[in-house]
Amino acid sequence: MAAWISHAPQTPCMTDTLPPLRPIGHLETPWAALADCPRNGRQPQPPPLCRAVVDLAFQPALQGLEGISHLILLYWMHRAEAAPLVLAPRFDGAPRGVFATRAPVRPNPIGLSVVAFDRFEAPGVLRLRYLDCVNGTPLLDIKPYLPTTDAEPEARMGWLAPHATRRQAPA
Amino acid sequence: MAAWISHAPQTPCMTDTLPPLRPIGHLETPWAALADCPRNGRQPQPPPLCRAVVDLAFQPALQGLEGISHLILLYWMHRAEAAPLVLAPRFDGAPRGVFATRAPVRPNPIGLSVVAFDRFEAPGVLRLRYLDCVNGTPLLDIKPYLPTTDAEPEARMGWLAPHATRRQAPA
Repeated sequence: MAAWISHAPQTPCMTDTLPPLRPIGHLETPWAALADCPRNGRQPQPPPLCRAVVDLAFQPALQGLEGISHLILLYWMHRAEAAPLVLAPRFDGAPRGVFATRAPVRPNPIGLSVVAFDRFEAPGVLRLRYLDCVNGTPLLDIKPYLPTTDAEPEARMGWLAPHATRRQAPA
Repeated sequence: MAAWISHAPQTPCMTDTLPPLRPIGHLETPWAALADCPRNGRQPQPPPLCRAVVDLAFQPALQGLEGISHLILLYWMHRAEAAPLVLAPRFDGAPRGVFATRAPVRPNPIGLSVVAFDRFEAPGVLRLRYLDCVNGTPLLDIKPYLPTTDAEPEARMGWLAPHATRRQAPA
């Protein structure tokens, strides 16, 4: 246990791998291939209807989502190729470390989207806006978006600032 | 492939498990046990210094983080117990589905924090504020926080609204 509780910098991790992830459902989007996906979920105007479809076994965990306007979805970017640690984004060209980008090619290809949750279309089927991933992406987690801890509207974007997606008026 | 590209609701996922996760480093916080952790990273005032320590092999992926003020960290909540799908939060009492909470006990216990990134303390060592996890938590991913896609300051919190953490003036 010592390595986990040490405060010494550069303490190596004790495990090489972690317990396996299990999809809780999948995401439905209009994009059949990676090349079709928008750069982010707020680029298409209007943003198309997307869905999260939660497997029956996990549907009890959705109780209490009503009235929460935005969700954080975590998903497994199953179509992402092997990950270089440094890449040159299409829209930029200079080499950037993957942790300074939102590229899908990452050591652990877990995607994250802050989405608008409109309503349940059926039990276990959530109507969403602002996804940007390929259709059929395995869903890992749903979290309520809490502006008190998740919203940092004044955050500075560093090298990404000139590439910002202009926000429309909120729907 | 048909199941992945179908738009039919309730299409089951094709895989039961996904490729294994690999820690890219670990997090250093003042909290040695789960019971010590604050409810969220913005509750302690002032927020204590925390660190992300990225393993040497992944340090090239940090290139370009300079000038990005806030990061999204994903980590594996290795101390979380087995996950009930419905629970009664300490601060509330009514039963809530885990996907309507930020509780660490979840089907895939991936934690998420929006943190302030102050500076590199050493190569691969990031000084952070606003973590809330236990010391030694395995780190999975670092993403730049983009207010253009991640900030929804007007989001409605549903059942969590009466339990909101009051935000201090930004540092």
